[in-house]
Amino acid sequence: MLAVYLENGRVEVRKQPLPRIPEGFARIRLLAAGICSTDLELQRGYYGFSGTPGHEFVGEVTDCADKAEYKSWIGKRVCGEINLACGECEWCKRKLGRHCPTRTVLGIVRHPGSFREFLTLPIRNLHRVPASISTEAAVFIEPVAAACEILDQVKIPKGERVAVLGDGKLGLLIAQVLQAHGAKVHLFGRHKDKLRLVDVHSEVVGKKMPSQEFAFTVDSTGSAEGLSTAISMTQPRGTVVMKSTVHGLVSINTAVPIVNEITLVGSRCGRMEAAIPLLASGKVKVENLISDSFSLDRAPEAFARAATKGVLKVLLL
Amino acid sequence: MLAVYLENGRVEVRKQPLPRIPEGFARIRLLAAGICSTDLELQRGYYGFSGTPGHEFVGEVTDCADKAEYKSWIGKRVCGEINLACGECEWCKRKLGRHCPTRTVLGIVRHPGSFREFLTLPIRNLHRVPASISTEAAVFIEPVAAACEILDQVKIPKGERVAVLGDGKLGLLIAQVLQAHGAKVHLFGRHKDKLRLVDVHSEVVGKKMPSQEFAFTVDSTGSAEGLSTAISMTQPRGTVVMKSTVHGLVSINTAVPIVNEITLVGSRCGRMEAAIPLLASGKVKVENLISDSFSLDRAPEAFARAATKGVLKVLLL
Repeated sequence: MLAVYLENGRVEVRKQPLPRIPEGFARIRLLAAGICSTDLELQRGYYGFSGTPGHEFVGEVTDCADKAEYKSWIGKRVCGEINLACGECEWCKRKLGRHCPTRTVLGIVRHPGSFREFLTLPIRNLHRVPASISTEAAVFIEPVAAACEILDQVKIPKGERVAVLGDGKLGLLIAQVLQAHGAKVHLFGRHKDKLRLVDVHSEVVGKKMPSQEFAFTVDSTGSAEGLSTAISMTQPRGTVVMKSTVHGLVSINTAVPIVNEITLVGSRCGRMEAAIPLLASGKVKVENLISDSFSLDRAPEAFARAATKGVLKVLLL
Repeated sequence: MLAVYLENGRVEVRKQPLPRIPEGFARIRLLAAGICSTDLELQRGYYGFSGTPGHEFVGEVTDCADKAEYKSWIGKRVCGEINLACGECEWCKRKLGRHCPTRTVLGIVRHPGSFREFLTLPIRNLHRVPASISTEAAVFIEPVAAACEILDQVKIPKGERVAVLGDGKLGLLIAQVLQAHGAKVHLFGRHKDKLRLVDVHSEVVGKKMPSQEFAFTVDSTGSAEGLSTAISMTQPRGTVVMKSTVHGLVSINTAVPIVNEITLVGSRCGRMEAAIPLLASGKVKVENLISDSFSLDRAPEAFARAATKGVLKVLLL
């Protein structure tokens, strides 16, 4: 089969044998995968990564190790939780396998990713994709779940004004998810053409940003300056959700969150159970966010396209 | 009367007329005041400050503007909430006058401080100091309230292990307050002699600090590195309380709190109602933390002493 392979900044397509299926695992034929900003960071050497990346995917289960128990999964269209947890530790018992200290992570930490013709995941990580979600849209279940994670961590009252900073892929999803929850979202971005892609109240940012105006602010800018801007836009006793992974150090004037007693909440992956209904119901729309699609053998072009300024989601099919 | 005056880094003692008493205010004769790290920062030009500093004090009410209504206060020993709030705005109505946007702050923002023979505060800011708290100990009501603020913001279960970083004045108070609350406190500091001053389990920090070990960590180091250390010592989904006001920017690797979904909580002043019983009952002990006392006319020496390495609280009497 074909598999994308990253090494020393190069994107290659290699031939590999079909992956073995460990006990409790399924083998999944890739239907579509999405290139995420994290994949571009992995290409640049983030986490000292080499191997097959990819953690956004939808596929069809073709085989599993324990057929008697799991045969009902075969032929089903699935997405999958990307953290492979031990299932035994304190974190796993608290249903927080996403923080299991011995976890591997699909396409990121010691488990080959989804950018290959067949991948493997534990059956317990899988979720069936309902027919009302197209294969292309299903690629977004993972990032929509990451957006939903905010609502699992922070109680945002319905009707509350929330600022979302950043009009990249994640910002556009977060804005829609929070709006679907009932928040009055104000989306701030630099690109009129991107802000227009979602049906959310938005504003092209100027030099002057609002000061201490929002009880909740989400930094999904992907920039080192985003966190300070988010803090300064937030009311005393308000909450800033940190969704921007930035390579390197971020400098902040900590006096501002201390004097204003602001809470900063780090936020990562989320539950797919929360994301699937939002895509199935059309409350979160993702078709507009797909910039391009490539077959797996054209992965080097796909990565180059995904890294181009102004491009949103690029799919591998 | 005598009043300490800071200007361009100089500490002077000036003669001034007695302060006028606005409506709703009391005039208070100073019994004792404490020099806080913030006062040393104000001397260095933090907030562009010039004027009379001082926000930790105990005094005796000598007069008030509305005698018929408030005469019962006269002769009483009091401490006082340092934020002078408007009493009308949304924040004040939520009993969060400490965040009132038009507030002045005793000895910090547009209200002359406690380092003078007579000061003024609104009657509604005052708290009677019970006889069981000595005048010297009562100076600590304000910083103990700041330590108590943590418990108003963050739910720390009794019996939970909590790391407190820093063996300065605030760290030693925080460690005692959290222990009095029922937490299992582990205090980390650089100075064996300071750690010994409080009856809390403590450790002189070495090169290697614990990793992801505590669900709750308080950074009261006063250093720019403290926050990163606190984050790395905290478990996934744990909480770091930010109590260190550091002059200038603090650099952090935001990937750590994001991947581990850590919450950072900025924390400032607190309720004196919570602090007074802790000092009255002896659950928080402060006598050991007093390094020296000076009369008000010797304020320049007192400031120099307070700024000396290894010195804890210096009082002005």
